[in-house]
Amino acid sequence: MQVTVYSAFNPINFQSLHSRTAMAPSKAKTKNLLMVADSEHDANMLYTVGMFVPDPFIYLRLSGREFIVMSDLEIDRARKQAPRCQVLPLSDYYQNLRSKGKTPDFAGVIQLILRENKTSSVFVPNNFPFGLATQLKNLGISVKPELGNFIPEREIKTADEVRKLTAALRMAEIGMAAGIEALKTSKVGKGNRLLHQNSPLTSEKLRSIIDTAVLQAGGFAANTIVAGGRQGCDPHERGYGPLRANELIILDIFPRAQKTGYFGDITRTVVKGRATEAARKLYDTVYAGQKLAFTLMRANTPTATVHEAVLSLFNKQGYKTGKIDGRMQGFFHGTGHGLGLEIHESPRVGATSTGVLKAGQVITVEPGLYYSEIGGVRIEDVALITTGKSKNLTRFEKVLEV
Amino acid sequence: MQVTVYSAFNPINFQSLHSRTAMAPSKAKTKNLLMVADSEHDANMLYTVGMFVPDPFIYLRLSGREFIVMSDLEIDRARKQAPRCQVLPLSDYYQNLRSKGKTPDFAGVIQLILRENKTSSVFVPNNFPFGLATQLKNLGISVKPELGNFIPEREIKTADEVRKLTAALRMAEIGMAAGIEALKTSKVGKGNRLLHQNSPLTSEKLRSIIDTAVLQAGGFAANTIVAGGRQGCDPHERGYGPLRANELIILDIFPRAQKTGYFGDITRTVVKGRATEAARKLYDTVYAGQKLAFTLMRANTPTATVHEAVLSLFNKQGYKTGKIDGRMQGFFHGTGHGLGLEIHESPRVGATSTGVLKAGQVITVEPGLYYSEIGGVRIEDVALITTGKSKNLTRFEKVLEV
Repeated sequence: MQVTVYSAFNPINFQSLHSRTAMAPSKAKTKNLLMVADSEHDANMLYTVGMFVPDPFIYLRLSGREFIVMSDLEIDRARKQAPRCQVLPLSDYYQNLRSKGKTPDFAGVIQLILRENKTSSVFVPNNFPFGLATQLKNLGISVKPELGNFIPEREIKTADEVRKLTAALRMAEIGMAAGIEALKTSKVGKGNRLLHQNSPLTSEKLRSIIDTAVLQAGGFAANTIVAGGRQGCDPHERGYGPLRANELIILDIFPRAQKTGYFGDITRTVVKGRATEAARKLYDTVYAGQKLAFTLMRANTPTATVHEAVLSLFNKQGYKTGKIDGRMQGFFHGTGHGLGLEIHESPRVGATSTGVLKAGQVITVEPGLYYSEIGGVRIEDVALITTGKSKNLTRFEKVLEV
Repeated sequence: MQVTVYSAFNPINFQSLHSRTAMAPSKAKTKNLLMVADSEHDANMLYTVGMFVPDPFIYLRLSGREFIVMSDLEIDRARKQAPRCQVLPLSDYYQNLRSKGKTPDFAGVIQLILRENKTSSVFVPNNFPFGLATQLKNLGISVKPELGNFIPEREIKTADEVRKLTAALRMAEIGMAAGIEALKTSKVGKGNRLLHQNSPLTSEKLRSIIDTAVLQAGGFAANTIVAGGRQGCDPHERGYGPLRANELIILDIFPRAQKTGYFGDITRTVVKGRATEAARKLYDTVYAGQKLAFTLMRANTPTATVHEAVLSLFNKQGYKTGKIDGRMQGFFHGTGHGLGLEIHESPRVGATSTGVLKAGQVITVEPGLYYSEIGGVRIEDVALITTGKSKNLTRFEKVLEV
């Protein structure tokens, strides 16, 4: 894949940099903003500009007018795909800097555009690159990190976003269906090891089956978790090696929709064959915790309240959280997290999280319990917060034994 | 997928924070370094720590000793997978901060660890988050952005890295083989539209065929380009809609190996059916440019020299670069880029790139020519730079008509 490089031999005809007019912003936008990032990884950039660009580029919002500065490689596509922004050609600004004997770099370009717009002060996101911020300060520009969410609107999903999130969730469910179908049709071989189409069914193989189904449904599934037995006790362990009958297997699938960039997220815990009594009790407790969370989650409920209620339920049932034999066991992660153009975004629902739930937030609900002696159970659906009962966007059934 | 949240109810037994001893560093490492990033997206972090962690965490190198600060969710895995680093528990530091009435956050944790190690000055990468840098400065810590590459060793690949890159490249080649096979077995329908297994063959469908093959070979292929006809003239256009016989189709596949994180990268341009004379001449010229680049690429050659030679060859053959009818045409991207744990990394090979090639660099060689009237051609292989002739790591054949 190629990157943009300004060509020194490039016979550019200079055009007016401001021949196109941005649409009037839909609401008062007074703060001057600057972002420099690619929009494949940076969700603020993707949300704001609305197109995927693989290399970092400059976005400015000055007195409510939005500008993006694009390389020759992206400029035509940007004019089509980001109609709200004025598209400025990076190569023109580089040429301008060179003609003044200056280094053609992003800091210099930003300085030129700020001067054209008679300002020298911008807010940037917390994750703005420190090296570039330092360069800008050295050029006399005031660069301030925005405390809190840079694009606070992202937290409240529009109807269109809920549709896109739901579509991504369906891709995750398609992956889950493929994974569970493979478990169902597996045979049990020596040492309880599973055999799928006469080959050993490993975590890697089952992940490939799931990820292929997700891909064909239009999603990218990276790092899908297929963790059986003790591996399931380490909640970020992706899982490896042979899968076995009669033990807990965690399947956690969180694909990104290829076209929109929104994420789905689902977890189911299953046993191929028969669950032990301890495993079933663990499963039922986690499921009860999830149901409790759903009943509590609505606008104006403090996020910490939801998490504490689940933790308290687990405690009352005898499932303690803390270090046992030198490793964390019990319920030692959050109850949920916001889902959107990032897999983990604001708000968080956990013991240390602050603030209250708001209508329009889309949040995972995924309590889990992990004990070396039994294995791990996590059950995850996705909730849309409303002023009344929260809506479960996930449809996929919950069945322990498959 | 779950995130880490410290549990307020968590009965942690405090252990000595320094009970484990890091291995002696292999060479003098005197500069104090700080990184805060996740290692799925941040290549410096992955290179240094050697394990995938989906959420941001703290890495410190102080007087040559390496520390990582991990959440309860990751700590057990980290002790196994990052044996070179001392693994410090984030929750202990948070508890410490809380007991002092301070906010438990990364800035506070970093301050505690720097104090324990009797230092207050660190270098950070250029992409270090500006918000956190500002917090650290407010705590009296000197934070300096490292100019240039933060981990300069990354640019020169070890034999092990070349093996991993080659494996990722093979995944890309498997995708290419699947894509070209689908084109070969397609029939030509009305209006030259291609039919694959009696269904219209679109860019989306062919991308899915390619990406599925890559996935099953162990790679993640995101944003594979399948761009036919005029779409191929926009080098970052992924491609959409029906594919047609007798026109140029660009296939650009750049998967990341799931296990190692290294990237492969390959581009072929093909015609299903018969290429026009203009398309064939364009193809032959690009191929000649690529061969010229390969003959020039060796240690100590300036990167710009390679790019200029290719551009000059194209010019001499009558293929000019610049704006035609208001859009960039010709050869308006770089000749290549470093390939490693990032798809685009140092060095760049282009008109504005500086420096000379070095033995051990792994670089794409991907000239291209794009004209609205003809279509786009790009041919991309991967070179390992040596002191002699560079080695082409790509094996896949180059055939225009399929």
